[in-house]
Amino acid sequence: MAVVEISVAPLGTAQPGVSEFVAGCVEIVARSGLSYQLTPMGTVIEGDLDQIFPVLREMVEHPFGQGAVRVSSLIKIDDRRDEQRHDMAGKIDAVTSKLNADR
Amino acid sequence: MAVVEISVAPLGTAQPGVSEFVAGCVEIVARSGLSYQLTPMGTVIEGDLDQIFPVLREMVEHPFGQGAVRVSSLIKIDDRRDEQRHDMAGKIDAVTSKLNADR
Amino acid sequence: MAVVEISVAPLGTAQPGVSEFVAGCVEIVARSGLSYQLTPMGTVIEGDLDQIFPVLREMVEHPFGQGAVRVSSLIKIDDRRDEQRHDMAGKIDAVTSKLNADR
Amino acid sequence: MAVVEISVAPLGTAQPGVSEFVAGCVEIVARSGLSYQLTPMGTVIEGDLDQIFPVLREMVEHPFGQGAVRVSSLIKIDDRRDEQRHDMAGKIDAVTSKLNADR
Repeated sequence: MAVVEISVAPLGTAQPGVSEFVAGCVEIVARSGLSYQLTPMGTVIEGDLDQIFPVLREMVEHPFGQGAVRVSSLIKIDDRRDEQRHDMAGKIDAVTSKLNADR
Repeated sequence: MAVVEISVAPLGTAQPGVSEFVAGCVEIVARSGLSYQLTPMGTVIEGDLDQIFPVLREMVEHPFGQGAVRVSSLIKIDDRRDEQRHDMAGKIDAVTSKLNADR
Repeated sequence: MAVVEISVAPLGTAQPGVSEFVAGCVEIVARSGLSYQLTPMGTVIEGDLDQIFPVLREMVEHPFGQGAVRVSSLIKIDDRRDEQRHDMAGKIDAVTSKLNADR
Repeated sequence: MAVVEISVAPLGTAQPGVSEFVAGCVEIVARSGLSYQLTPMGTVIEGDLDQIFPVLREMVEHPFGQGAVRVSSLIKIDDRRDEQRHDMAGKIDAVTSKLNADR
């Protein structure tokens, strides 16, 4: 199971706001049926990489259809296969349980 | 105002789980008094870069004190200065409002 | 034409050195026939995204075949479609020519 | 010793080319006296983090002085302290020597 974060931003759009482009990308994830979470800096998706990769490919393409001529994308993959639970909620739980243990 | 995401991971720790190291870094942010949010893939912080940079510096150092010999860190900065509201909640609102508008 | 940087690192490998894993990934790029360049922090590839994506997918999978149980990968894509020349050498030339012009 | 890659890009610049901004950032590194290398996707710097962090801070600020209103920066740090040689050339050598060994 992999947890993947992606952010997509067009360059040279005249306006510094890019949320319209981001929204188009988020809708692609939403339609994919994969579990995802919107963060202030990107979209986090969980699932098998074979399911996620086609979604990533579609997302990095999307802004060109909205008029962008240059698109900068960042994809970070955390793929772990030694335990049953490696998902978005599990990753946060692992950290917050350590925080509580320290106090 | 800047929104910054940071993730810190030690390499060569024998065990693939690194949440103990991550928790140590999150506590540094918590003590800083800056607003932050834990995501499945990192920690997002908002504030002025002059306040945030010393916190980032401390975070990327922290795992060495916990026994790490190699630390890989990723820092992504989104700094916008043309409008009053550029923060974690505002960035998500900008996208979700576009999502609603499309439907 | 896209210029893409990828770095792949296993977590929890006991030894902090990961060059053996990186070499395996670089060989995948080399076999692909795509133009690439090794940098101190990753591998840069140029080409069409439809050609590059399958190579990226294979690279992030490779360390598992070498015994890794957790793999952290970072992919950065710069895709530009408004001009004929957007490749590795052209990107560096664009910057160095500005450096010379300033002097 | 740390090896650090940084890329800095303004958003909303009307033109998709950003090499003028990148050149301004590279000149900051050049003036710092730190060893660095320009790649197609960023600038790689080597040195002690205490020397590098002030340079990074200056780089992510620079585009605002050139008229940018939003700047997106990515910083990747590979800090290793268990051996004497961890620098830009050494990292590439470690991988290429493995490539040769495989053949």
